[in-house]
Amino acid sequence: MAGSTFGKLFTISTWGESHGKGLGVVVDGCPAGIPLCEDDIQIFLNRRKPGQSEFSTKRNEADKVEILSGVFEGKTTGTPISLVVYNQDQKSKDYGEIANSYRPGHADYCFDEKFGFRDYRGGGRSSGRETIGRVAAGAIAIKALNTLGISFTTYTRSIGPNVIDYSKFNKDEISNNPHYMPDKECAQKSSEYLKEIMSQLDSVGSSVECIISGVPAGIGEPVFNKLDAILAQAIMSIGAVKAVEIGDGVKVSQAVGSENNDNFFNNDGFISKSTNHSGGTLGGISDGSDVLVRASFKPTPSIFKEQNTVNKNGEDIKLAIKGRHDPIIGPRAVVVVEAMCAITILDLLMINATSKIDNLVKIYK
Amino acid sequence: MAGSTFGKLFTISTWGESHGKGLGVVVDGCPAGIPLCEDDIQIFLNRRKPGQSEFSTKRNEADKVEILSGVFEGKTTGTPISLVVYNQDQKSKDYGEIANSYRPGHADYCFDEKFGFRDYRGGGRSSGRETIGRVAAGAIAIKALNTLGISFTTYTRSIGPNVIDYSKFNKDEISNNPHYMPDKECAQKSSEYLKEIMSQLDSVGSSVECIISGVPAGIGEPVFNKLDAILAQAIMSIGAVKAVEIGDGVKVSQAVGSENNDNFFNNDGFISKSTNHSGGTLGGISDGSDVLVRASFKPTPSIFKEQNTVNKNGEDIKLAIKGRHDPIIGPRAVVVVEAMCAITILDLLMINATSKIDNLVKIYK
Amino acid sequence: MAGSTFGKLFTISTWGESHGKGLGVVVDGCPAGIPLCEDDIQIFLNRRKPGQSEFSTKRNEADKVEILSGVFEGKTTGTPISLVVYNQDQKSKDYGEIANSYRPGHADYCFDEKFGFRDYRGGGRSSGRETIGRVAAGAIAIKALNTLGISFTTYTRSIGPNVIDYSKFNKDEISNNPHYMPDKECAQKSSEYLKEIMSQLDSVGSSVECIISGVPAGIGEPVFNKLDAILAQAIMSIGAVKAVEIGDGVKVSQAVGSENNDNFFNNDGFISKSTNHSGGTLGGISDGSDVLVRASFKPTPSIFKEQNTVNKNGEDIKLAIKGRHDPIIGPRAVVVVEAMCAITILDLLMINATSKIDNLVKIYK
Amino acid sequence: MAGSTFGKLFTISTWGESHGKGLGVVVDGCPAGIPLCEDDIQIFLNRRKPGQSEFSTKRNEADKVEILSGVFEGKTTGTPISLVVYNQDQKSKDYGEIANSYRPGHADYCFDEKFGFRDYRGGGRSSGRETIGRVAAGAIAIKALNTLGISFTTYTRSIGPNVIDYSKFNKDEISNNPHYMPDKECAQKSSEYLKEIMSQLDSVGSSVECIISGVPAGIGEPVFNKLDAILAQAIMSIGAVKAVEIGDGVKVSQAVGSENNDNFFNNDGFISKSTNHSGGTLGGISDGSDVLVRASFKPTPSIFKEQNTVNKNGEDIKLAIKGRHDPIIGPRAVVVVEAMCAITILDLLMINATSKIDNLVKIYK
Repeated sequence: MAGSTFGKLFTISTWGESHGKGLGVVVDGCPAGIPLCEDDIQIFLNRRKPGQSEFSTKRNEADKVEILSGVFEGKTTGTPISLVVYNQDQKSKDYGEIANSYRPGHADYCFDEKFGFRDYRGGGRSSGRETIGRVAAGAIAIKALNTLGISFTTYTRSIGPNVIDYSKFNKDEISNNPHYMPDKECAQKSSEYLKEIMSQLDSVGSSVECIISGVPAGIGEPVFNKLDAILAQAIMSIGAVKAVEIGDGVKVSQAVGSENNDNFFNNDGFISKSTNHSGGTLGGISDGSDVLVRASFKPTPSIFKEQNTVNKNGEDIKLAIKGRHDPIIGPRAVVVVEAMCAITILDLLMINATSKIDNLVKIYK
Repeated sequence: MAGSTFGKLFTISTWGESHGKGLGVVVDGCPAGIPLCEDDIQIFLNRRKPGQSEFSTKRNEADKVEILSGVFEGKTTGTPISLVVYNQDQKSKDYGEIANSYRPGHADYCFDEKFGFRDYRGGGRSSGRETIGRVAAGAIAIKALNTLGISFTTYTRSIGPNVIDYSKFNKDEISNNPHYMPDKECAQKSSEYLKEIMSQLDSVGSSVECIISGVPAGIGEPVFNKLDAILAQAIMSIGAVKAVEIGDGVKVSQAVGSENNDNFFNNDGFISKSTNHSGGTLGGISDGSDVLVRASFKPTPSIFKEQNTVNKNGEDIKLAIKGRHDPIIGPRAVVVVEAMCAITILDLLMINATSKIDNLVKIYK
Repeated sequence: MAGSTFGKLFTISTWGESHGKGLGVVVDGCPAGIPLCEDDIQIFLNRRKPGQSEFSTKRNEADKVEILSGVFEGKTTGTPISLVVYNQDQKSKDYGEIANSYRPGHADYCFDEKFGFRDYRGGGRSSGRETIGRVAAGAIAIKALNTLGISFTTYTRSIGPNVIDYSKFNKDEISNNPHYMPDKECAQKSSEYLKEIMSQLDSVGSSVECIISGVPAGIGEPVFNKLDAILAQAIMSIGAVKAVEIGDGVKVSQAVGSENNDNFFNNDGFISKSTNHSGGTLGGISDGSDVLVRASFKPTPSIFKEQNTVNKNGEDIKLAIKGRHDPIIGPRAVVVVEAMCAITILDLLMINATSKIDNLVKIYK
Repeated sequence: MAGSTFGKLFTISTWGESHGKGLGVVVDGCPAGIPLCEDDIQIFLNRRKPGQSEFSTKRNEADKVEILSGVFEGKTTGTPISLVVYNQDQKSKDYGEIANSYRPGHADYCFDEKFGFRDYRGGGRSSGRETIGRVAAGAIAIKALNTLGISFTTYTRSIGPNVIDYSKFNKDEISNNPHYMPDKECAQKSSEYLKEIMSQLDSVGSSVECIISGVPAGIGEPVFNKLDAILAQAIMSIGAVKAVEIGDGVKVSQAVGSENNDNFFNNDGFISKSTNHSGGTLGGISDGSDVLVRASFKPTPSIFKEQNTVNKNGEDIKLAIKGRHDPIIGPRAVVVVEAMCAITILDLLMINATSKIDNLVKIYK
């Protein structure tokens, strides 16, 4: 598969398997001159690290990142930045049993059909650990975007039936609870709910939202590389995501035009919108308001409950998955969603830099 | 913007504006030897043609397609297929007024910010007429896919609050009503509802579903070019789409794993799934079951009701849009959704052809 | 084949066959705001038009270009520019005979092997007429580059054994003779030589040079998209080119370092080079001096002399090609070489615009 | 710069600097099921390793490759293959002086102009060590191509004025002399010649040829991704190459058509060519005969002789380069040329797999 590269000017190429030697990413096309050190990246990786709460896998990985190239004297050089995280706690014996089974909800069967065989250890390439490369690359993109005044607020919106109350939205609360929720009360209910789900040897779905502030109007390339279209690819490419919404999302299908349209008005000399149903894009181009992206995550497919399935020979079997698994995907994926949004925004922002001949004149004359 | 090309092996490059000389597409990478004539394409274009019901714009366009290259002796030659549709009924005077206004819900403001000015006639490049190139190219993809046993069922799922009743799903009904709905009763209710909306000078949202049958297991390239990720880009790139769902979509965020997982079983010697919550993809790779895609369309932003907005100088104004506009987008977009799904599937199917060294041996030795 | 698109940000997608309805190109990613009309393009197409001298095919084509999209109120809009040239003088009967023969030096056999069959009329897609799209797109690129102070001098360097004398180089002479040579005397000798070649029912090779002035230092993306590497692809992709050289070209293989290195010196406050053996690139990046590209064209493969070959059944036959053919390719390809160089330079110049974070700050803050 | 990825289906993304932590490559899109171990790659890296003869830099690097992903149970899995070579013998002090100088013939000045600053240690990214990633990836491509009956013969054709005598061509001799020349006598003369050049503190140019046997007819995608066009990009992208020739190369510019055309004939039931002036491509598509590529390398720009140049402040200075440098580039680049040819051929072979609808039917039905 040649599908491990994302982006057109700011490109990331990820590699690595759950139980191989390590995982990493090559970031190419990163503008030169951005201050960057390993700590800048590590703080993002720490947000997705396993084993940080009772609701996360007990796999013990430091996930320590190393910069192998592309940074000199503390700044990006414009050449490829190679990042690596070596695996440490690969308990391959945990996974021996699944070598011959097709786990429901997992890609085992599909990989076998596609490639003829698969690295079955911990899901191989289809493991959630694959996102390490995304998060590491996203940290660099965010560093660059901050320079331009663009920032991200990303959080878990819901865990099963527990949805945050937007009237109680508190940004500071996000990092205060294990679910990365901006609503303290909802986080507490979610904890109780998750304990119940875990006691049933089951798992549950969730949703994550990302608000991107400071994006200038004009970003996104109609008609196929619209801002929302590339965001949709970026987010849907994250394992377990089954829906991507921009702004009001699925609700628009029941709205009427006079309510759904956001009116423009003169806001102290600047053109603004009085509402933001559009989620920051019109015609696939940023409109200067916050960009709002929502992802729906399916329940973790690995559950301890016994399930019916088949083995490689197509024989019906019973399977109770063992090992170490999160009962929920959203919270640890918050930083992955943020990373993918950042990579998308930076790439499209770079592409937009040459949309006008005036911009080229500005740079070259 | 270099965003008008989609696909990696089977690529389409669309061009054209609502009120320019015409619109078209160059299809490159189409396999040689597929029987193709203009009628094969015209029947798809006719499905999106304006003026076919009382719920569609009165603009009168034959939308007659011409093949300019790439077909010889009735078959595709493997070289670029250039298709053109000349515009006929461009009433530019209808649009004169909006040259200086930023219509709510439209991309006018964004194009000005991006490019410094815009072709304001009928929305220019951001008009729904842009989809002509997509549909024409999609017709070719569908012709190719039919050869391989892959087929499409696409329909309007809902218009405003009127959602089809799946227990009354009748495929034959789809082409019998102006809304392309598979549920006759729902279609009738929708007609009445739309008349009411139109009398209020308003518009309404809708949703469209596409079921793709016959896709072999193994299609889709992890991790960024997953089948669902590219479908998400393809569908979200259609104007007015604000949400893309695969399989159970947003519902998964509230599901538990033991219900959401589809069990594999031995189906008379073949590996099948007992349910299809996944919508035909696992880990971003087709799993052999029907691929299910859902798109949510916002209400047509052009409404006849007076709205608040600003002009190019940023001054607050009142605007009542004139001209010819559909009160709803979904029905005419049904064939656009189908086209984009087909292009995506064919492209990924071609890419997957070299996933195994055995396949190369099969072709070259 | 998905090989008809060139460029990454400024992309061109060409289409069309020698004896189809027409030929054209879609130019995507062109910066908005460049003044453009059909005449701007026509003057370039006229330079490659057939039938302009006794040394060129008698095929009579006006090659009149039409702009179908992407230009509004006399300026590029940033959306795809679709250009078309309709064929007029397709004498298909001239070519009937070759439907079943594999002409030596032509791609007939290769197309059949690749695609299973071919459009045999006038070479189909492999005809020299394919370059119409390149030249039309190149005219736009040159228009944009002129704005930035970049200009082109392109000419025939040699026809058979007749090589220009650089000490007699006269730029004004280039458009004064049918061979586009900057050396009047050499052009006259070439005319006599060509008459002799034609009387022998034969053809002859040639070479073309392009000097690009005003390219700022810093253009080109190591390591695979170096300026010289993309120029090499661009030029080698022109039919009949068998060698591409940058600067001193093949001569460097016999040079010593102390002579081949160009010394830098302080040129009135600017860093300059005292010589230009490098042809304007170092490490694949422009060094601020003239970029020099040389292309070697093989003799026209269509000759009237009888040749041995095979037919589609693999049977040995004798073939004397009829029809209308240039005895030499270089002169009419001069503008094609210029076009491909311009497209390459503009694309890489646009890509380089985001090489430094400072440039992004310049545009967005 | 986003220029470190090459290939469309079989893609390689290289990274690393001369004096950074290491160098490597991510190979994506490699077909699954190819037997592969580190030794398969190491034998190729050993061919370009420094310090193997008196004519090569004394830098002492084991250049030991490690496979970090994409191989399981001894076979490629179809997922990204990450390869790394850690640097060991970085004597950074050797290079301290050049931090502020612009070496003639080097990219120092261009990198500063492009990125604002540069990693000056050993040339950073523009060092010849960059080719490690290419060679490692090429080894995999060659492994795959051997399966399909495609093989490579690559050698030094000339060193300064010493050109091999084709009548004495001995394939077995290539690995018997330090210059990888197929003509023993020429290799001996070259050794003496090089000693003389070295005593003059100078360097010299060279040329390398690659013959690719067994390529089936039909490979290459007109019009921009022709086999020869992509080969030209691939080869010209290698540092120090200033000319790429296919088949007769620059000689065609002086040839006549009746001699340059290769006649087809019936060769015991197969269509063959009686000569191979074309170098295995017609119209940019392989014609079934050997593909012949030639590269001209400039002399090593690093010479010990004193040269005139400027420093970063633009002041004229004298510079005598110290450190460890090869007096000639060709011999160590032989394996680099072979690698780039292999990567190109495999990628285009994979792309060609879907040129006919019949091929898709063969794989999917």
